[in-house]
Amino acid sequence: MSDSSFELQSEHACFGGVQRFYKHMSEEIGLPMRFGVFLPPQASVGPVPALVYLAGLTCTEETFAFKASAQRLAAELGLALITPDTSPRGAGLVGEADHWDFGVGAGFYLDATRAPWSGHWCMESYLIKELLPHIARDLPVDAARLGLFGHSMGGHGALTLAQRHPGVFQTLSAFAPICAPTQCPWGKKAFTGYFGQDESLWAAHDAVALMEAQTSAPFPGGILVDQGLADKFLEEQLHPHLLEAACAKAGQPLTLRRHAGYDHGYYFISTFMDDHLRHHARGLGLTS
Amino acid sequence: MSDSSFELQSEHACFGGVQRFYKHMSEEIGLPMRFGVFLPPQASVGPVPALVYLAGLTCTEETFAFKASAQRLAAELGLALITPDTSPRGAGLVGEADHWDFGVGAGFYLDATRAPWSGHWCMESYLIKELLPHIARDLPVDAARLGLFGHSMGGHGALTLAQRHPGVFQTLSAFAPICAPTQCPWGKKAFTGYFGQDESLWAAHDAVALMEAQTSAPFPGGILVDQGLADKFLEEQLHPHLLEAACAKAGQPLTLRRHAGYDHGYYFISTFMDDHLRHHARGLGLTS
Repeated sequence: MSDSSFELQSEHACFGGVQRFYKHMSEEIGLPMRFGVFLPPQASVGPVPALVYLAGLTCTEETFAFKASAQRLAAELGLALITPDTSPRGAGLVGEADHWDFGVGAGFYLDATRAPWSGHWCMESYLIKELLPHIARDLPVDAARLGLFGHSMGGHGALTLAQRHPGVFQTLSAFAPICAPTQCPWGKKAFTGYFGQDESLWAAHDAVALMEAQTSAPFPGGILVDQGLADKFLEEQLHPHLLEAACAKAGQPLTLRRHAGYDHGYYFISTFMDDHLRHHARGLGLTS
Repeated sequence: MSDSSFELQSEHACFGGVQRFYKHMSEEIGLPMRFGVFLPPQASVGPVPALVYLAGLTCTEETFAFKASAQRLAAELGLALITPDTSPRGAGLVGEADHWDFGVGAGFYLDATRAPWSGHWCMESYLIKELLPHIARDLPVDAARLGLFGHSMGGHGALTLAQRHPGVFQTLSAFAPICAPTQCPWGKKAFTGYFGQDESLWAAHDAVALMEAQTSAPFPGGILVDQGLADKFLEEQLHPHLLEAACAKAGQPLTLRRHAGYDHGYYFISTFMDDHLRHHARGLGLTS
C-alpha cells in the first residue's frame, strides 16, 4: 500500500515565512512527485490565498523557488506560492529523457491519451484532482482564493487549465507563454506524442482555441501577460498576437506587455515578478 | 599569445539594467576565468559604484546572480554587482575536484604557496591585481567606490581581503562568514593544503587574527554580518563570536545579527540581501 501523505524533504526560513519542498506518492501519476511551497508569515495564523506557478520545459519544482525572486513580496502580501514539478519522473519509459522538449521535464500540463505516455503523463488530473485538494486539506492554503500563472510551457499550462476548470482559479497571468501549441513546433511535437495524430483532441488544450470559443470573458478582472522582445522563441513558438486577437474576440481584458531587450529566462521573469504578484493580490482581494 | 580581454558569454536584460557573464584569460591564474556583472540602468550614463560578492564553497560566478535576488534593489540604488568564480578551473591537477571543500570551487580567496596549488590557486592576486583593475578600465564601474561582501568561504574572503588591502574597499559585510579559518576544520584543511603546515603564514588570512592586530577600526562606518541560528555549520565552522570579540577589542563597529530559524543557504541570504545593499549604499554615499 502506498502512503500518499506529504513527506517534507527540506525546509528553509525565508522572508519571515518558510520555503518547503515535499514529496508524495501520486495516485494519478502512479509515481512519487515533488513540489515546493512558500508559506508567508501570515500562514502561521490561518489559511492564506495561494498562487500556483507552472514552470517551463526542463524545469523542476525548485526552479521558481531559486530563481524567480518572488518570496519577498509574497511574504509582504500574504500569498503562498505552490510550485509543482513539470512532469512525472522515474517512470522508466523507453526514450522518456531523450528530448528536452518531450517526456521528462515536459509534461505540458495535460493528460496523455496515447500509449505509453497515458500511463503516467497525466499532469492535469494530478494538479487539479489530487495536488490542489491535498494541499488545501493539509497546508494552510485557502482553496477558494487561488491564482494561476506560469512560464513558457507553464504559461500554456496556466492559460489552458484556468479556462478548462472554471471557478478553480480566480486570477491568471503568464510570462512568455506558448499561446497556441497547435500552431508551433513545441506544441505539435508534444500533442502528437501525447494525443496522437487526431487533431480533434488538440484544440481543447490550446489557449487561443479555448479563448476563441468563450462566449464571455472567463477572467473579467483581466489577464496579465509579459513577453520579452529579445526572446529567441518568440516568433516560432509563442504567438502572443494570437492570444491578443482571441481575447479581443471573446471580450476578455488582456494586458499584454512587450518588453524590448528582455529574453526568455528568469532574469526577465524576476524583473516583472512583482507586477504579477500584485495583479493576483488585487484579484484575490488582498489589495485594492 | 593569450588575449586577456573580456569575452562576453551571455547578456540578459534585468530590472532595466543588464546581467552579463564574461570569460577572460587570467595572467595571474594562468587559466581562463569567468565572472558575472550586473550593471544597473545608471551605468548607461557613467561609472557607478560596485559591490564585489565572493561566493561560498562549490559555487560559481552564476550562483549569486541566479539566487540572491539582489538585482532589483541594486538597479534602484545604482549599484553594480561583480561576482567572481570561487577558484581556478581546468588546471588538471591530480585530485583537484576530489573534495567539495578544497581545490576546485574552494579557492579561499588567497594565493597558495604550496605546490602544486601555488601554480594556479592565487585568487587574491587575481581579484585585487587583475580583475578589479581590468573591470575599472573596461566597464562603467567607479573603482574609487567599491564595497565587498560574501558568503561562508566568501565571507572569509571579504573579511580578510578588505583588511589586507586597506583603501580598496570602502564598505564591508558578510553572510554567515568563516570568521576564524585557523580555528575550524574547513580552514585548517584549506590552509594546510594551500600554505602547508607552517602556521605562521596562516594568521595573515584569518579575519579574526587580522582584526585582533588592528590598532584602529579599519571600517569606521561599521561592518554588517548576518548569521542564521539554524545554520548547520555555525558551531563547528563559522565562529562569529570570535569576530565579535576581535571587533570589540579593535574598536571596530560591528552589527552582528543572529536570526532564529535561518539556515546557511540562499533563502537566508536573499531574505537579508536588501539590508546589505542598503548598508553598502550608505557607506558609498548613494543614500543617507
